[in-house]
Amino acid sequence: MQRTIVKEIPEHKGEIIKVCGFVNIKRDHGKLVFIDLIDRSGVVQIVGGEKLSSLKPQDVIEVTGKVQERPVNMVNKKILTGSVELSIETIEILSKAEEIPFDMTQEILNVELPTLLDFRALTLRHSKVKSIFKVQAAVMQGFRNAAQALDCVELFVPTISASATEGGAEVFKVDYYGHNAYMVQSPQLYKQMLVPVFERVFVISHAYRAEPSVTTRHLSESVQMDCEFGFVNFDDLLDYLELVGKETLKYVGKTCSDILSDFNIPEIKIPENVPRLTMREAQRIILERTGIDHTKEKDLEPEDEREICKWALETHNSDLVTITHYPTKKRAFYTLADPKDPEFSLSYDLLFRGIEILSGSQRISNYKDLVSAIKERDLDPKNFEMYLQAFKYGMPLEGGFSFGLERITMQILQLKNIREASLFPRDMERVDQRLSVLKSNNKK
Amino acid sequence: MQRTIVKEIPEHKGEIIKVCGFVNIKRDHGKLVFIDLIDRSGVVQIVGGEKLSSLKPQDVIEVTGKVQERPVNMVNKKILTGSVELSIETIEILSKAEEIPFDMTQEILNVELPTLLDFRALTLRHSKVKSIFKVQAAVMQGFRNAAQALDCVELFVPTISASATEGGAEVFKVDYYGHNAYMVQSPQLYKQMLVPVFERVFVISHAYRAEPSVTTRHLSESVQMDCEFGFVNFDDLLDYLELVGKETLKYVGKTCSDILSDFNIPEIKIPENVPRLTMREAQRIILERTGIDHTKEKDLEPEDEREICKWALETHNSDLVTITHYPTKKRAFYTLADPKDPEFSLSYDLLFRGIEILSGSQRISNYKDLVSAIKERDLDPKNFEMYLQAFKYGMPLEGGFSFGLERITMQILQLKNIREASLFPRDMERVDQRLSVLKSNNKK
Repeated sequence: MQRTIVKEIPEHKGEIIKVCGFVNIKRDHGKLVFIDLIDRSGVVQIVGGEKLSSLKPQDVIEVTGKVQERPVNMVNKKILTGSVELSIETIEILSKAEEIPFDMTQEILNVELPTLLDFRALTLRHSKVKSIFKVQAAVMQGFRNAAQALDCVELFVPTISASATEGGAEVFKVDYYGHNAYMVQSPQLYKQMLVPVFERVFVISHAYRAEPSVTTRHLSESVQMDCEFGFVNFDDLLDYLELVGKETLKYVGKTCSDILSDFNIPEIKIPENVPRLTMREAQRIILERTGIDHTKEKDLEPEDEREICKWALETHNSDLVTITHYPTKKRAFYTLADPKDPEFSLSYDLLFRGIEILSGSQRISNYKDLVSAIKERDLDPKNFEMYLQAFKYGMPLEGGFSFGLERITMQILQLKNIREASLFPRDMERVDQRLSVLKSNNKK
Repeated sequence: MQRTIVKEIPEHKGEIIKVCGFVNIKRDHGKLVFIDLIDRSGVVQIVGGEKLSSLKPQDVIEVTGKVQERPVNMVNKKILTGSVELSIETIEILSKAEEIPFDMTQEILNVELPTLLDFRALTLRHSKVKSIFKVQAAVMQGFRNAAQALDCVELFVPTISASATEGGAEVFKVDYYGHNAYMVQSPQLYKQMLVPVFERVFVISHAYRAEPSVTTRHLSESVQMDCEFGFVNFDDLLDYLELVGKETLKYVGKTCSDILSDFNIPEIKIPENVPRLTMREAQRIILERTGIDHTKEKDLEPEDEREICKWALETHNSDLVTITHYPTKKRAFYTLADPKDPEFSLSYDLLFRGIEILSGSQRISNYKDLVSAIKERDLDPKNFEMYLQAFKYGMPLEGGFSFGLERITMQILQLKNIREASLFPRDMERVDQRLSVLKSNNKK
C-alpha cells in the first residue's frame, strides 16, 4: 500500500490508508488510546486500543487504518485533519526512540536555553521550534523573489579570504595550507566586485564574527541576504531596499499566517510608502516625543530605534521606517559621504518593530577616493588588490544592502534570543556542544 | 530622462532614449565610430563621431541617442537588439577605466589560467566568462525548483564544526576563541539531523576540503546542493535523484539555450527513464565493449565513467546514467550496506557525459548500527554526540544525495578546469591573489 501524507487524509474518508510519522502525543484512556502522529505535512489523530499503549513520544511508526469522521463535538478546527481520525488496523514500529529527557508534548517547549541547545537535534522537532525555521525558509524565499524581480542574479561568493579586510569586528583565523587566512565578515567586498559583471546581484551567504561577547542579538556564524546594484543613485537604493523589505515581509505574512497567529504576532503593517527620516530628524522627533535629547549622539541607541518605530506605527500605520544619513565615521570604509554634508553618509538602516533588520549604503565607486578611504581607516590597500581591481577598470555608481536572516526571523516572531532563530547556533561558548564539555572530552 | 535597459531598446524605435553601460568594443573608422555597449540585459551598437573616439574598453558611460533601424544588410541576428542602433546625441563618461592589461574584445578571452584568475574582477566581465555563472545560477534555480517540488524545506546549516567529523579528506582548522574547530567537509551530518524535524530538506552550502593536491577537478572551497529524505527506501531515492538531476538539466537547457549554443554544447539528451546499473554490471559492460577487465576493481575509474556514459548514449539515447552498489568500504561511514550482499552498499552516483555529478546513498538509520559503523572506521562516537542524538530519539529510513555546483557547471559547459566554474576559486596556491605573492607582500 502507498503511503498517504497526513494533509491528504481528509480526501480518503472511509478508506483504509497507510501513514508514516513520529508519535507526538499519546493520550491513554485504558481501552481507548489516542496518538497524535506527525509527518512533514501535518498532524493527525490515531485512535486504537492496546496496540498503541506501548508507544512513546518520538517513536517512528507506520500505521494502516480507516479514515473516519469525528463526532461533531470532537472536531478540532485548529488542525487541517481535525474533522477526521484514523482508526488503527495495523501498526509497525519503524524506530523506537529512547526515553526523552524532558517533556516535548506541551504546546510550548518549556526548557531553558542551554537545554534547548544541548539537545538541539531533539528540540528542533517540537512543532513550535520547527515552525521558526519554516518562517525562516519563507523569509529566504520572499527575499529571493523580490531580488529576482529586481533583475538580480544569484551568486555564491567565497567565505575564506586572504586578509581580515573589512576592519572593525574580530575575525576567525584559518590555517590555510600553512598560510593565515580568515573567515569573511560578510560577502560585501565580493558582491561589489560583481557589480561590473552582472550589474545587479544577490547572495545568500554565511558571515563570521569572532566578537568575544555574549549577547542576545549576535551569533558567531550567521546568514546574510545581500543585494548590490550598479547604475543607481541614493533614491533608487531607498526604493529598492524598501521594496525588498516589504515584499519579504508580505511573503512571510501570506505563507506563514498560521504560524504567526500561533506565535500571537499581530498583523504586520506594511504601508505603500515607508516613512523615511534622517538620523538627525529621527533624534529630533524622539526629543519632541520623550524629552530625551539624543540629537548629538552619533548613532541611534536601541531605545531610540524602539521609539522611532512607535512613531512610525502611530503616525504612518507602518511597522517599517527607513533611517538615513548616519555619521560617515560610524559606517564601513566603502560608504559614500553625502556630498552636501560629508560628515553624514548616504547610508541607511531599515527598522522593523523596534530593531534594525537591514543596513546598507551608496558606496564609494571612484577608485582614487576608495583608496583614500581605505588609507584613512589605517587599512592597507595591498590587502584589497583584487577588490580595487573592480574599481580601477570602470565602476558605475553603485550601492546595496544586507539583511541578517536570523535577526529578521527573530524579530518577526518576537523571539527573546537570536540563538532560537539559528538551527545550530555558534557563539563563543558553543559549537553544537559546549566548548567546555568538548575540552574536557578531549583531555580524557 | 529615465534610463532604458538595452533589451528594451527595440521597443523605442524613433525615440530619443538614455542608456547606461560599459564600453565593450570600439570600431573606429575615423568619422564614423561604433561602440558596443553592455548592460545587464544585453548589448547594443552605438554609432557616432568623434564624441566616441576617446572611449576605451570598460569605460562606464551614459549615452542619449535616437533609436534607428539598421540597414537590412547590417542587421545582426545574433543579438536581441541587432535590428537597431543608437545614434548618439550626448555622452557622459561616468567612470574612466585604466588601460586593460590584455585584449578583452575578442569573442573568446584568450588568456592563460593564472592570468584569468589574477585579474578575476576584470576577466569575469568578459561575456563568455560571465555566462558561465548565468548557467550556474540556472543550475541552482533548477535544483531548487525540483527540491521544492519534492516538498523539501530549504535550510542553512553551519560551516564551522567542533570536530573533523567525516573522516577521510583533510580539513581546515579554525582558531575558534582559542579552541580548535574545523570547516565542514560537507553539510551531510546536519542535513541528516534535520530529517526527523522536516522529513525532507535541501541545503545549498559551502564545503571545504584541505586536500594538498592541485587537480583540474577539485576546489578547496566549493558549493554543494543537497537533498535528504525520510521514510524512503532505495528505489524512492533513485527516483528522486534522477528526477532532480533531470529537472535541473532541463531547466538549464530551457533558460540558457543561447549560452549553450554559444559554447557549442550539443543538446542534452534526457530520457524519461535514466538507465540504472550496478557498478559490477557497468564493469561487465565495459569489459564486453572494450576488452578492458575492471570487473575486480573497487570503483569506476575516470575512463570507465566515460565509457559507460558512451554506452548509455548509444543504447538509451541518454546523457545520464545511474550507477549503484559501490563497495561499502569505499563509501562514507553512514552508508547502508545492501542487506542482500553487505560487501556492496545502497549507494549511487549519477554520471553525466562522462563524469559523476551527484553522489549519495541510503543511510544507516539504526542508532546502534551507526555507532558500530563509526567505531569500525576508527572514529570516536564522542565526536558525533549531537549527530547521534538525532538517531537515538527515533529516525525513519532515510537517504539523500549531493550535487557539486561547480562540477555540474563545468560539465554542462565542457570547461577544462573546475576553477573556471567558480567565481573566486580557492586552491592550495590561491585565495584571490596567489599565496606566494601575499606572503612576500606581508614580509615587506
